[in-house]
Amino acid sequence: MKIATLSIGDELMYGEVVDTNTACIAERLYRVGLTVQRHLTVGDGEPDIVEALEFLSDKSDAVIVTGGLGPTIDDITSRAAAKATGRRLVLNDEALAHLKGVNEKLGGNLHPLNEKQALMPTKSTLIPNPVGTACGFHLIHQGRYLFFLPGVPGEMVRMLDETVVPFLLERNRYRKVVRTRVLKVFGPSEAEVDFLLKELAAVNVGITVAFNVIFPEIHVKLRAEGESEVAVDDLLERAMAEARAKLNGVVFAEDGATMDSVVAGLFREKGITLSLAESCTGGLVAKRITDQPGSSAYFLEGVVTYTNAAKTRYLGVPPQLLAEKGAVSGEVAMAMAKGMRRVSGSDVALAVTGIAGPDGGTPEKPIGTVYIALANRAGCHAKRYAFYGDREEIRTITALTAMDWLRRQLLSP
Amino acid sequence: MKIATLSIGDELMYGEVVDTNTACIAERLYRVGLTVQRHLTVGDGEPDIVEALEFLSDKSDAVIVTGGLGPTIDDITSRAAAKATGRRLVLNDEALAHLKGVNEKLGGNLHPLNEKQALMPTKSTLIPNPVGTACGFHLIHQGRYLFFLPGVPGEMVRMLDETVVPFLLERNRYRKVVRTRVLKVFGPSEAEVDFLLKELAAVNVGITVAFNVIFPEIHVKLRAEGESEVAVDDLLERAMAEARAKLNGVVFAEDGATMDSVVAGLFREKGITLSLAESCTGGLVAKRITDQPGSSAYFLEGVVTYTNAAKTRYLGVPPQLLAEKGAVSGEVAMAMAKGMRRVSGSDVALAVTGIAGPDGGTPEKPIGTVYIALANRAGCHAKRYAFYGDREEIRTITALTAMDWLRRQLLSP
Repeated sequence: MKIATLSIGDELMYGEVVDTNTACIAERLYRVGLTVQRHLTVGDGEPDIVEALEFLSDKSDAVIVTGGLGPTIDDITSRAAAKATGRRLVLNDEALAHLKGVNEKLGGNLHPLNEKQALMPTKSTLIPNPVGTACGFHLIHQGRYLFFLPGVPGEMVRMLDETVVPFLLERNRYRKVVRTRVLKVFGPSEAEVDFLLKELAAVNVGITVAFNVIFPEIHVKLRAEGESEVAVDDLLERAMAEARAKLNGVVFAEDGATMDSVVAGLFREKGITLSLAESCTGGLVAKRITDQPGSSAYFLEGVVTYTNAAKTRYLGVPPQLLAEKGAVSGEVAMAMAKGMRRVSGSDVALAVTGIAGPDGGTPEKPIGTVYIALANRAGCHAKRYAFYGDREEIRTITALTAMDWLRRQLLSP
Repeated sequence: MKIATLSIGDELMYGEVVDTNTACIAERLYRVGLTVQRHLTVGDGEPDIVEALEFLSDKSDAVIVTGGLGPTIDDITSRAAAKATGRRLVLNDEALAHLKGVNEKLGGNLHPLNEKQALMPTKSTLIPNPVGTACGFHLIHQGRYLFFLPGVPGEMVRMLDETVVPFLLERNRYRKVVRTRVLKVFGPSEAEVDFLLKELAAVNVGITVAFNVIFPEIHVKLRAEGESEVAVDDLLERAMAEARAKLNGVVFAEDGATMDSVVAGLFREKGITLSLAESCTGGLVAKRITDQPGSSAYFLEGVVTYTNAAKTRYLGVPPQLLAEKGAVSGEVAMAMAKGMRRVSGSDVALAVTGIAGPDGGTPEKPIGTVYIALANRAGCHAKRYAFYGDREEIRTITALTAMDWLRRQLLSP
């Protein structure tokens, strides 16, 4: 079944509002095995709406339209729908009764202007709105299903779930079963991940592989399609196992899990405590740790030692070490981690020091030079990194690298 | 000038990603007097992309395309562009040199798969990418301007601003003068801001007012339209002065400035130093301070004292005070701020303690109870807040409130 979506509203053409309805509809349909093939957005002009409806209904089996069903003068979707389908606008009694009912509940009378919201093209079927005033409608035009929903996301999604999706599923004869899983990867480049997985889709018929870069993470999506739930689940599980094996070690989370939620889960599970000493990330790692509900169970404390004096005062980093090696050095990173662990009494202490820019780089230590150190019962080790990007990117990739250190540490036997 | 946008990506058709590029492009064009007339989204299938390009270039003077310029097998925008315009794909030397340069900086060699990113339709002009690997290109097809940009928002927007917008402005004959200014507000509700400004647009002909809520900030956009630059600038300046007066005190930044950049500018200007003691925000305030380039000039250090023991050890908060008043209390917030100032020797110390949830609330101190305290030479004061929302919202509004305290403190005589 070919499905299209159409968003209507001048505010979208002026960039005043980000259109989240489109992704919401696409996601909810995709989940049940229906795919949106194209999406169009136009402003509140009648010729544009009519043309968009003609273009989309010509190319699709179903069109889901959102927006322009409100009471104001610029809401003209119903009129455009009537024009595009060669119908008259008539007052829908059911919609009028609904409007009156909602208004009575709010303690008011229906303003004559609002009656306009009960006008629909002839032979339309009302789509009830359980949470707002504007009813939707659907109609069949030249064998194509057209649905008209309000643009308010909370109303749209209820009407989509309760009326549109069941309607489409019932009429989708060629229904495939579709499942999607996600592997989240950190470390290799997109090209490297692509190289590792390039045979996966070829070998596993019915599996498609897609990549989504959310810097600095790469999300690998495996999608399985088939006739029966059992077959699709089985196919997907085998492809997942194969992908995990090929991506050995660089997958940090799957599906809805994130780096931060995985690290939080491991800390809770292992009953290990953490403290953090940050310089160039300036609290970003602590923020990520404490973003997680329940982090007070394992996170004890952190310091942001931006100055050398603070590194010495809180963490006991010797001033002569700072003078000799520089604040951005493996030695200082290790002294910070060991000092943090001693002061806090935590099981694990992680330290970060580096140059995020835009100033402070030298030929020996250019912008992007970062040292991470980790101290635990077994000792302490540090590593130097050379990251590339602007200040925000360097801080972001440094923080994710630090989180990945914690993840690997917690997973090591 | 009729302008269309086209977003390409299966991830958009599956609803896995909300398309923010479309609103971003529309907003940036609208700001300079250009309006997007229609927007289309299609997946990564070549026939769909070709058809979309044909449809849009048939109806528009310019088409701005985003997405599908990456190195992987599903990135086929260049190929589709060549097909839609009847051209061959050729290796662009400039793009190849750029790709090689970026890879060398990253200390690696160009993966053969990546060379694909230098393929462009014949007679294309390269659009430089100052912040990433994927170059864009533009071409003129049957008198229409087609622009192809990567989908990564940070890269797309730089290329739009630096190449596409100047190109379009130069060629836009029927040019109206349009200017937009933004006032960023924190404190009152959207309805309150609307009430304060509702006469502004009515009184100032040629001015439109729009609101954009970016929780917990409200951005008020004033847009002026007219024939001459002088008249539009004058009109907008008068409206801005009027709006500032009506919004007396709650405007924290204008246009491209943010709360964080304003606070950073004030710290630099006043030559005042800062330290931070955070509990429930867990490093979020320190992160916002150190997000700003040059923050090491005024930010000395911070501590994230998640446990009572850490509050006592780092900041000297008396254990009996913690026992009597609780960690979330005005007294403890003040002891944290004063302790932080004493330990760090900073001019200003700010402390935050509160309950971000989802656990830890009590009838007397429900989730969302937050105390902020500020210590300086003149003394120390604290205030209690009752915020509403989930953990992330409470942490976000708490951090913004803390930043606003610093802003107001730095502005006070």
